Amino acid sequence: MRELHSVSVVLRDVRRYLKLPGEVEVPVEGALGLYSAETVVSTFKLPPKPKSVVDGYAVRASDVEPASPSSPVPLKLSGGVLRPTGEASVRLAPGEAVRIETGALLPEGADAVVPVEDAFEEDGRVYVLRRVAVYENVSLPGEEYDEGLVVVRRGERIRPQSVAGLILEGRESVRVFDATVGILNVGDEIVSGTFFKPFTHVFVKGWFEQHGFRVQELSLARDDIEEIAAWLNRSGAYMSVLLGGTSMGGHDFTVRAVEGLSPEYMVHGFAVQPGKTACLAVKDGKPIVAMSGLPVAALSTLEVVVKPMLRDLGLDVPDYPRVKAVLTRRITVKMGVVGFARVRVYRCSEGLCAEPLMVGGSGSLTSLLRGNGFVIVPEGVEGYEEGEEVEVHLIRGVV
Amino acid sequence: MRELHSVSVVLRDVRRYLKLPGEVEVPVEGALGLYSAETVVSTFKLPPKPKSVVDGYAVRASDVEPASPSSPVPLKLSGGVLRPTGEASVRLAPGEAVRIETGALLPEGADAVVPVEDAFEEDGRVYVLRRVAVYENVSLPGEEYDEGLVVVRRGERIRPQSVAGLILEGRESVRVFDATVGILNVGDEIVSGTFFKPFTHVFVKGWFEQHGFRVQELSLARDDIEEIAAWLNRSGAYMSVLLGGTSMGGHDFTVRAVEGLSPEYMVHGFAVQPGKTACLAVKDGKPIVAMSGLPVAALSTLEVVVKPMLRDLGLDVPDYPRVKAVLTRRITVKMGVVGFARVRVYRCSEGLCAEPLMVGGSGSLTSLLRGNGFVIVPEGVEGYEEGEEVEVHLIRGVV
Repeated sequence: MRELHSVSVVLRDVRRYLKLPGEVEVPVEGALGLYSAETVVSTFKLPPKPKSVVDGYAVRASDVEPASPSSPVPLKLSGGVLRPTGEASVRLAPGEAVRIETGALLPEGADAVVPVEDAFEEDGRVYVLRRVAVYENVSLPGEEYDEGLVVVRRGERIRPQSVAGLILEGRESVRVFDATVGILNVGDEIVSGTFFKPFTHVFVKGWFEQHGFRVQELSLARDDIEEIAAWLNRSGAYMSVLLGGTSMGGHDFTVRAVEGLSPEYMVHGFAVQPGKTACLAVKDGKPIVAMSGLPVAALSTLEVVVKPMLRDLGLDVPDYPRVKAVLTRRITVKMGVVGFARVRVYRCSEGLCAEPLMVGGSGSLTSLLRGNGFVIVPEGVEGYEEGEEVEVHLIRGVV
Repeated sequence: MRELHSVSVVLRDVRRYLKLPGEVEVPVEGALGLYSAETVVSTFKLPPKPKSVVDGYAVRASDVEPASPSSPVPLKLSGGVLRPTGEASVRLAPGEAVRIETGALLPEGADAVVPVEDAFEEDGRVYVLRRVAVYENVSLPGEEYDEGLVVVRRGERIRPQSVAGLILEGRESVRVFDATVGILNVGDEIVSGTFFKPFTHVFVKGWFEQHGFRVQELSLARDDIEEIAAWLNRSGAYMSVLLGGTSMGGHDFTVRAVEGLSPEYMVHGFAVQPGKTACLAVKDGKPIVAMSGLPVAALSTLEVVVKPMLRDLGLDVPDYPRVKAVLTRRITVKMGVVGFARVRVYRCSEGLCAEPLMVGGSGSLTSLLRGNGFVIVPEGVEGYEEGEEVEVHLIRGVV
């Protein structure tokens, strides 16, 4: 068997061959979860001027300094009510107050707001019962939204607060990375479906969708180099993902099809357990990833190779939540090999315990349904002992 | 001001008025991220029979017990190759072997596989160079997929591995909760858009989409009870969310519109900081949530009231990742009030530090763009001290 490639070496080497996905302009309201290709910085302040946060009376704080319930300060009420829909055209002179609603901008001259419950009106005057400090009950310019904030960063997934900021900036569209994937599930037994319906490609599709990628092609192919090569040539996606046909022995139809494209970079065989038969290539700056058709081996390649590779490129691919848990059985991996161990995390007297599930098996959907997380054992570590605290990536919650 | 309602009391009381969303059947391949209304348990085993995990020769382990490189054991090669596409029709007699590919089922009589590199063929015989144990290089029935596994649980969001399991079970569709939301952003200043484009409704839409809900209506309305009531009456969504018009003073158009529906349950005013003006009602078993139009107060209501309420109903609404961080400034909240404090988490000498951002302000999109998480201070706690370790919910990663 050929030498297996170190994951860290591949990740270091591959990045100089890879290009980022192309960029497209999409409407802001449909951009949630996509990867921004722009860094947008905010350009103005909200409120634009001091704004009342209560219903009450805009005043000069200095005018009401001596106010108390026993000696209310009378102020001349200028007419009308300041509302949040319009700019205040009045100017408050000393000794004056004006009715103001929550959300309305303060008039020139005012620097505080007396809440409605701390005053009463009588004969065209308002009597203030309590003093207010300068800017009391006022939201200052920039407090809600400020200049110079990073609304969204290039490479970041667009979150609800970034959508809000883009709308505030008057943007109708935003440039995002066209992060598309084509997935091909390869195998005569996949196409024939004798024992089971093929499902790994749908599982992998779900993984990419969860991570902000759009799966634009999803197909099956026989163990046929020509058929696989034709699919690769026709694929318009940024990343091509092939499942099955990656064996290190004779059943490497997929690998040979990739080889036939004369990619500028290609490795086959990774020091990862499971997932060692994976193959990574770059053709015209775009990644081609061939991986085992077995779901756990595929997940291992996605988490150990694909996710870090995309992050190195500058895409902020999200992590699963992580928790610390105590191992109930040791996990061992050969030195130099990355281990991808499925575990079941549950509450125990130590807090959280993690039970390793079938460490050897790579085809097991069982371990993904029964388990709820995985532990990555780095290259330089031979495993973890029973009783050791490890970091678990949770693919679903702890029951 | 009226007495504020305790969040824990409201959550305890409201659940007996609420119904779950209706159920609809959707295609399995489009079900990722939706809330399953079914519990599906697996009904068969994969592989159905012992299966080879290497290319090689299916044998009886007892036949090759004495094999070694210096004295290979010859076995009679029965014709053909077992492939992963078909059922093995041959039956292996003692002293026989048959070529088998990775993924093919073992024939009757065989109980192990000799890898191709541990044997050679000569004159219609295969010479085995190394012994194999019973079931060596074999995947046993149920190892990949087993009977009795929970493929998906009612109330759980459908994950990639559940989609895979549903496909294996031959399901083309799955019953999910029709978790729909209608959102109305209320305010004369919202409709007029004098100072800024309205954005809180789009922020809230993003929150619901991130949490597996489908937003089917998104509208604006003036401060007009009739207009708000008409929208509520016409809304076909499971949950109605109203933003703005919830003030505890005069500007409570939204609250009065909700009141006008004669809901079977209604509270206005929560002991939550920020977000105290929120209003929760139940009409015909469906929730109506009115909350501040300021984004941070809205987020506080969503996280402190809406998310726990939906979880109590049995929907497994996801959490943000959580980390422990050391507070750089104290957070104080009145006893009996839930605090929702925005923080910025960053790496520091203690590991992770959390800096509270503008604890008082509720309108601040700034704190959501500048910060990356929040801390919830429970009702029974008056806050946390500087230097105390707190749990932070991360709305985006730590830079």
